[in-house]
Amino acid sequence: MEVSEYIKVFAPATVANVCCGFDVLGFALEQPGDEVWVRRKDAPGITISAIRGISGLSQNPEENVVGVVAQKMLAELQVSFGLDMQLHKGMPVGSGLGSSAASSAAAAYAVNELLGKPFTTEELVPFAMEGERLASGSAHADNVAPSLLGGFVLVRSYDPLDVVPLGVPVELYCSVVHPQVELKTSLARSILKKDIPLQKGIRQWGNLAALMAGLLKADYALIGRSLHDEIFEPERSFLIPLFKQAKQAALDAGALGAGISGSGPSIFALSATEQVAFDVRTAIEQVYLSSGIDLHAYVSQVPEQGARVIQQPTLHA
Amino acid sequence: MEVSEYIKVFAPATVANVCCGFDVLGFALEQPGDEVWVRRKDAPGITISAIRGISGLSQNPEENVVGVVAQKMLAELQVSFGLDMQLHKGMPVGSGLGSSAASSAAAAYAVNELLGKPFTTEELVPFAMEGERLASGSAHADNVAPSLLGGFVLVRSYDPLDVVPLGVPVELYCSVVHPQVELKTSLARSILKKDIPLQKGIRQWGNLAALMAGLLKADYALIGRSLHDEIFEPERSFLIPLFKQAKQAALDAGALGAGISGSGPSIFALSATEQVAFDVRTAIEQVYLSSGIDLHAYVSQVPEQGARVIQQPTLHA
Repeated sequence: MEVSEYIKVFAPATVANVCCGFDVLGFALEQPGDEVWVRRKDAPGITISAIRGISGLSQNPEENVVGVVAQKMLAELQVSFGLDMQLHKGMPVGSGLGSSAASSAAAAYAVNELLGKPFTTEELVPFAMEGERLASGSAHADNVAPSLLGGFVLVRSYDPLDVVPLGVPVELYCSVVHPQVELKTSLARSILKKDIPLQKGIRQWGNLAALMAGLLKADYALIGRSLHDEIFEPERSFLIPLFKQAKQAALDAGALGAGISGSGPSIFALSATEQVAFDVRTAIEQVYLSSGIDLHAYVSQVPEQGARVIQQPTLHA
Repeated sequence: MEVSEYIKVFAPATVANVCCGFDVLGFALEQPGDEVWVRRKDAPGITISAIRGISGLSQNPEENVVGVVAQKMLAELQVSFGLDMQLHKGMPVGSGLGSSAASSAAAAYAVNELLGKPFTTEELVPFAMEGERLASGSAHADNVAPSLLGGFVLVRSYDPLDVVPLGVPVELYCSVVHPQVELKTSLARSILKKDIPLQKGIRQWGNLAALMAGLLKADYALIGRSLHDEIFEPERSFLIPLFKQAKQAALDAGALGAGISGSGPSIFALSATEQVAFDVRTAIEQVYLSSGIDLHAYVSQVPEQGARVIQQPTLHA
C-alpha cells in the first residue's frame, strides 16, 4: 500500500427517499457537505483531535461515525499504524440531508485515499454504512452510497448489498430548503405503517419505474409526472410545518417535482435548469420567511462526483 | 380519411406482471398472436363473419372484444359505414399470455389502418383496453399496450392513463411454456391480499427500479439480479403445477430470470441469447413432459414492433 501522510476529503449531502423511491433511491448534492481530515500516526488506534462546525458530537472514536468507519477499515486491512482524524461539519444534523452519511462517506473515502486506495469507491459503501448504523441504529445505504458515488444511486438489495449507480443520466438541479424546525428521524420512521395498501403500492412502483425511465432517457416531462409519493408523504408531511404550501410553491415556480428529503424536515425540489432551481428556492423561502420560520437553502446541480479529495499534500511510500 | 377496403393485422401475445413489475410492466412476444381481418361495408354497424382457431367465442360484436373495440372507434370517429371482421385466434385463451389483449390490439390496429390512421398507435391503447374491460371486467393496459407498441411498456398511471414505451433497449429472448392446465384469472386475482408488508414492498420496488436500469443500460447481470417477485409469486405459484421445478430448470439452463406470465399458468423466462432461450424452453418442457403434462412452448425475441399489417391489398380514397 502506498500510504499518504495526510489527506482532506469532502463528501456531500444527499437526498434520500426521492418521492416514489422510498428507501431505495438517493442522489448527491454539490453542497452542503462535510470534510474529514486524516493524518497517519505511528501509534495504533484512532483519535479524533478536532470537530469543527458543530457542537455536541463526541470525540470518542467509538461514539463518532468517522471513528467507527475508520476503525472498521483499519481492522479489515490489518493496518498496524493509527490515524488522527478531524471532522469539519458543513451541515447540520437532523436536517434530512444525510448529515451522518456525509461524515461517514468522507471518512471512508479519506481513509481509503490515505491508504493508497485498497478499495474501489463502491467497496467503501459497506464501511460507510457502519457509520449509519451508529448514527441511526440501521445500516442503511441510500445516503452513503450517493454521497460516495455521486449522481443518483439505487439500493436494489441489502442481502446481498447491491448498489446501482445510475451515473448522471440527465442534467438536473436541486433546490433544498431546510426549515429550522426540529424533527426526529425516529419519530418520522415510527409513524410508518407495517403494511401498505396493494393499490397504492402498485401506483408507487409504477411511478418509480417511470422515474427511472425518465432519468435514464433524459425525459424531463416523464420525470415530472413520476415524482409522486402517495404512501409516505401523506403520513409524514404533517410533521413539517407549511410542507404543502412549500411544495405547491415549488411546483408553481416550475419545479418538475418536490418532496420530503430523507425523513425531513428539509424539502427538495428537482428542476430542469439552474435558473428554475433558484426561482424554486426563492418561492419556498418566501413561504417560510413570511411565517417567521428561519431556514437554510441551497441550489445544487446533481453532480457527477460524490466524495472527493480536496487536498493531498505529499505521498509517502 | 383515406379508407382502405380490407386489411389484415397481426398482434402478438404479451407477458405482463414481469416479476417485480406486477400490474405495471409488460412486454411483447413475436409469437404466438392473433389476426384480425377487417373489411369495409356500406351498411352501418359491425358484423363478425368468422372466428377461426378456437371454438366457443361469440360472434355477437357486443360480446366479442374485437367488436367492442371496433365499435368504440367507429363511435369516436362518427363513421357512417360499417365493418365486417374476422378473428383468427393463434393462441389459446386463459393462458396468461394476453389472449384477449392480442385480439383487442389487433382489432384496434386494424380499424385504425383501415380508416387511414386517424390515431397514433399510442392513442389506440384506450380503445384496446375496452376489449380488456369486456374480457376481464377490468380495463387494464399492461397487455394491450405492449401488444400494440412492441418491446417493454410501462403503465405508470391509469388516471390519467400514462403508457411509457421503453423501446427495445436490450436484446432479450423469451421462452414461454404454457402447460395445459386450467387456471382462472379471476381465481389468481382473488387470492391477492389487499395489503402488502412494507418491507416486501420496498424490496419489490427496489428490484423493479433496478430492472428498469438493467433494461435501459443493457446490463444483463443487473436484469438477472432484479427479476424477482417476493409478493405475488409465492401466493400464486402453487396454482401452477410444477412451477418451482420449472423455474429452477430455467435458471439452471442459463435464464436471467423467470416467473409467472400474467396470471398464469404460462411460465416465462428471459435470456440473453436465442440459444440459451431454446435451452431454457427444453429444460422447462422436460419438467412437464416427464410428469405427463402436455404443453405449448415458444421462443421469441422481445420484438421492436407490436401489432402490424400483414396484408393490405388496395387503397381506396
